[in-house]
Amino acid sequence: MPMRTILYAGITANGHYGDSDAGQMPKQEKLNDLFNHAKEAGNIVMGRRTYEIFGADDSFAGLDVVVVSSKASFEGVQTATSLQEMLHYLKKKGYEQAFVIGGVTLHNALLIEGLFDELFINVEPYLAKGLNLGPTDSKITDLELVGHKHIGAGIVQIHYRMA
Amino acid sequence: MPMRTILYAGITANGHYGDSDAGQMPKQEKLNDLFNHAKEAGNIVMGRRTYEIFGADDSFAGLDVVVVSSKASFEGVQTATSLQEMLHYLKKKGYEQAFVIGGVTLHNALLIEGLFDELFINVEPYLAKGLNLGPTDSKITDLELVGHKHIGAGIVQIHYRMA
Repeated sequence: MPMRTILYAGITANGHYGDSDAGQMPKQEKLNDLFNHAKEAGNIVMGRRTYEIFGADDSFAGLDVVVVSSKASFEGVQTATSLQEMLHYLKKKGYEQAFVIGGVTLHNALLIEGLFDELFINVEPYLAKGLNLGPTDSKITDLELVGHKHIGAGIVQIHYRMA
Repeated sequence: MPMRTILYAGITANGHYGDSDAGQMPKQEKLNDLFNHAKEAGNIVMGRRTYEIFGADDSFAGLDVVVVSSKASFEGVQTATSLQEMLHYLKKKGYEQAFVIGGVTLHNALLIEGLFDELFINVEPYLAKGLNLGPTDSKITDLELVGHKHIGAGIVQIHYRMA
């Protein structure tokens, strides 16, 4: 069975990528949902900055954590210097899913390369300025709606797969 | 009863404001939903460019059409040169809702001024580059989730009101 790459992202109601610098930290309902997905996958993949924000506590116990970073490696954590290296590492370990939680640089790299199979977009109930989620070129990628649900705290999660 | 101002907008799955220049015209399912809302309101409000794209046919029969434009007026159609003038016109006629379909310039003006009571965000099942829906300042506006539903063609409609 080929491994599926899953992007898990949050946007504001007006479509901007959540920016933890802007002071809106993830709500507990979203973290619970995120870790349920991660446990199902057995792994959790993130960029360097996301790891620096998230990685300090025990949230990731029992998960195969992979940090994608061309610049830094972190003690006791698997670092991949490219998307391909990250995917290769997880495939080799036999995972059925690679679960990628961001941030925006890593998500955009996967979107631009077309290296994803499913998307979970969490639409959060506030309006704010923020970052842009890809693509950055003029390509249009059709998606198939798999489902939508309220995961709590006013967050609507929309699930897509590549059409 | 005070008149409620309703913004009806579409964004891509990655959060960009639909851009008709990019070749993705609204799907029939969305137009049906849009006109159901417009009929309920009795009116439909749009900016100049949206009127130029949409306004050529009989879609608006029976609706009080208002074009918000500081620059041009159109024959046989009510033109308002400001948001205040548009809202005043509809209030005076006794409407319970002002139904505003865009485009992005008009929606952003209402979002920035805080002149709205409800939002319908239609999340469309494709990834594409597009325009940014406001705000453009650092203000964060909390919303209350009213509901979410699939309106057809993979479009998830999320309904919010001001919290």
